[in-house]
Amino acid sequence: MRVFNFSAGPAMLPLEVLATAQSELTDWRSGMSVMEVSHRGKDFVACAARAEAGLREVLGIPESYKVLFLTGGASGQFDIIPMNLTAPGEVVDFINTGQWSTKAIAGSKRQGLAVNVIADEAASGYTTTPAPGSFAVTPGAKYLHYTPNETIGGVEFGYLPTAEAPLVADFSSTILSRPIDVSQFGVIYAGAQKNMGPSGLTVVIVREDLLGQARPTTPEVLNWTVQAKNDSMLNTPPTFGIYLLGLIVEWVQANGGLAAMGARNQAKAQALYAAIDNSEFYSNPVAPSARSWMNVPFLLANPELDGAFLAGANQAGLTNLEGHRSVGGMRASIYNAMPIEGVQALIDYMTAFAAENG
Amino acid sequence: MRVFNFSAGPAMLPLEVLATAQSELTDWRSGMSVMEVSHRGKDFVACAARAEAGLREVLGIPESYKVLFLTGGASGQFDIIPMNLTAPGEVVDFINTGQWSTKAIAGSKRQGLAVNVIADEAASGYTTTPAPGSFAVTPGAKYLHYTPNETIGGVEFGYLPTAEAPLVADFSSTILSRPIDVSQFGVIYAGAQKNMGPSGLTVVIVREDLLGQARPTTPEVLNWTVQAKNDSMLNTPPTFGIYLLGLIVEWVQANGGLAAMGARNQAKAQALYAAIDNSEFYSNPVAPSARSWMNVPFLLANPELDGAFLAGANQAGLTNLEGHRSVGGMRASIYNAMPIEGVQALIDYMTAFAAENG
Repeated sequence: MRVFNFSAGPAMLPLEVLATAQSELTDWRSGMSVMEVSHRGKDFVACAARAEAGLREVLGIPESYKVLFLTGGASGQFDIIPMNLTAPGEVVDFINTGQWSTKAIAGSKRQGLAVNVIADEAASGYTTTPAPGSFAVTPGAKYLHYTPNETIGGVEFGYLPTAEAPLVADFSSTILSRPIDVSQFGVIYAGAQKNMGPSGLTVVIVREDLLGQARPTTPEVLNWTVQAKNDSMLNTPPTFGIYLLGLIVEWVQANGGLAAMGARNQAKAQALYAAIDNSEFYSNPVAPSARSWMNVPFLLANPELDGAFLAGANQAGLTNLEGHRSVGGMRASIYNAMPIEGVQALIDYMTAFAAENG
Repeated sequence: MRVFNFSAGPAMLPLEVLATAQSELTDWRSGMSVMEVSHRGKDFVACAARAEAGLREVLGIPESYKVLFLTGGASGQFDIIPMNLTAPGEVVDFINTGQWSTKAIAGSKRQGLAVNVIADEAASGYTTTPAPGSFAVTPGAKYLHYTPNETIGGVEFGYLPTAEAPLVADFSSTILSRPIDVSQFGVIYAGAQKNMGPSGLTVVIVREDLLGQARPTTPEVLNWTVQAKNDSMLNTPPTFGIYLLGLIVEWVQANGGLAAMGARNQAKAQALYAAIDNSEFYSNPVAPSARSWMNVPFLLANPELDGAFLAGANQAGLTNLEGHRSVGGMRASIYNAMPIEGVQALIDYMTAFAAENG
C-alpha cells in the first residue's frame, strides 16, 4: 500500500509517473528498457529532446537559455558554478539564509573567489529572509547567489532579489512548484530529486551569454560550454533520470502547469501552517513572510514525545516526518507529488495526537 | 517482446534484474519506491551497504580499499583522478591503446600533469596492446594509467601490466566480466552502464593509502577522501543506480560469480570471433592476443551492404549492431547480460546474410 511520504528528497513522485515507468521498465521501445538503449540512438535522443522541450514549455525558458542535464547534484554545482563563470580571485556576492547557502559559499571559497556575504540571516537563527532592498550588491561582483528555498530551515524568499550582476539560484527544492520568470536569472540549477525525478540528475539552466568563461581546468564533463555544444551528451548522461523528468513534466502539464501547481502548493502549505499556528502543541519558528511552501519544519511542545509522534505517524501511513538531523523536531516536505489529501491526513493526525498528548 | 540488444552502453541488463525492479517500482519498502526514500534513511543505507558488500565479495576487494559510488561517468574521472592523486606539474604514465586512453590523457593534461605516454599503439591503428615488458615506467611517475578494454576499438589487455607506480585502470567495459586481482591496482574506476547497471553511477575502488592527496580546489562531491569518510553520501547519491547495482551483483552471485561469468564471456567471444575468422565476408582488425571479450567490432567485405545488414538484424531482433560513429562497420557488445543464445542468434544471422550476399 502506498503511503504519504514527507521525505525532503529523494521524495515522493507522482504515482502515475511511477506506474508508466513500471509498465515500460522491461520494454520501452522495441523490446528494450529505456535504461538499456544508447544515449546516442534516435529513441533516446528524442526522449531527451522531449524532456527538454517540455521543461522549456512549463517553465517558459527563453530561447537565449541553455538547458543542461548533468550529474553531481546541486552540491556539485557549488564548485562547478565558479569553475564555469569566474576566474580565481574574482568577487561574488551571496545572500546567506541557512545551511545550503553556507555550503554554496564554501564552494565558491574553495574555488578561490572573494565572497561577499551581502546579507546574512544568522542573527535570526536563519528563520527569515532579508527585507527587499535591505542589501546592496558589490560593484563588479560576478554574480549574486541566493537560495530561494532552504530545505532544512524551511525558509523561502517571498520575492525575487534583483541585482545588476546575474542572479544565480539553487532551485533544487522549488523548481516546478510554481511559475517563475526565468529571464530574471543568469543561472538556475537544481538537483532533480525533489520535484523533477530521481536523484543523480542535475538540471542547469544558463543564459547563453554567460557561457565561454570556464576555467581551463574545469573537468570536461562539467564544463557547461562544452556540454551545451554537445546537447549534454559529451559523455553518457543519466538516461533514466532524464526519461523520468520527461514523464514528470508531462504530468505537470496534464495537471494544469505551474500556475495550477503553485495554487495547489500554496493551499497545502497554508493549511499546514494554519494547523500549526492554531495549536499550542506545535510551533514553526520561521517568519511568516519567509515560510516555505515546500518544507515545513515544526516542533512539538514536548520533544520527549517526538518518538511517539513519529511512530504513530508511520502507523498512519505518514512517513519520513523526522526533522533534519541538524535541527531535530519534525519536517513535512510537501512537493508537487504530495496530494492535498496527504497534507490533510497529516493535519488530522497532528490534531488527534495533540488532543491525546497536549 | 525482448530483443538481443548489442548496445555498447547503456547496454542490455539481466531480465531478472529488470523484472525485480519493475515489481518493486511503486512499492519497494513500506509503500514507497526506492527512488522516493531518503538516502539517509535506514532502508536505503542498508541497500547501499548491501550493494557494496556484494561488490566487495564478487570482486574480492581487500579491506584496504574504499568503494565509492559517485557520478560523472568514467569520463568525469579523467579529470577527477588527477585532482585526487596529484599536484599540478607531477608526472604520470599512460599506455595509449585507443580513443578512451586518449581522452584520459587529455584529462590529465587539462589538470596540468606532465604526461608520459610510455606505450602508444597508434602505429597499429590501435588494433593491439603493447607486448608485456615492452614499456618502461618513468621513475617517480605518480601512477600508470591504462584502459583494460577499449570499447570502441574492441582492444583488450590479455595480461596485467605491472609497474612500481600504482596502476590506475578504466574498467568501465570489463568490470564484473571475469575475476580480477584488485590488490594489483591503485585505482579501478568504471561507469556502471555496461556491466553494473544504468548510466549515472560511477564506481571508484581506491586503495586507502592513496587518499588524502586531493587538491584543495577539488569539488567536494568529487573528493574521494571526503566521500570515503561519508560513505559516498556527502550529498545525495544516484540511489536508483546503487539499488540496481545491488540487484546485478546478486544476479552475478546467483549465476556462479565472476569465474562463471568469465567462462561464459570467453565462450561467447570465441564463438563470435570464430564465426568472423571462418568467413570471407566478415573481418575483425584486432590482433588475436588483444581481442576484446566485450566489444567485437567487425566489417562487412562490402560496406554498401551495411544498411541491409542492420535492417535485417533489427528484423531478426538483433539490435544496436551499428559500429561506433568514428569507426563505422558493426560492433557487437556482449556484456554479462547477453546470453549465449543471443550470440548464437547473431552468428546464425551473420552466416545466413553472408550466404545470401557473399
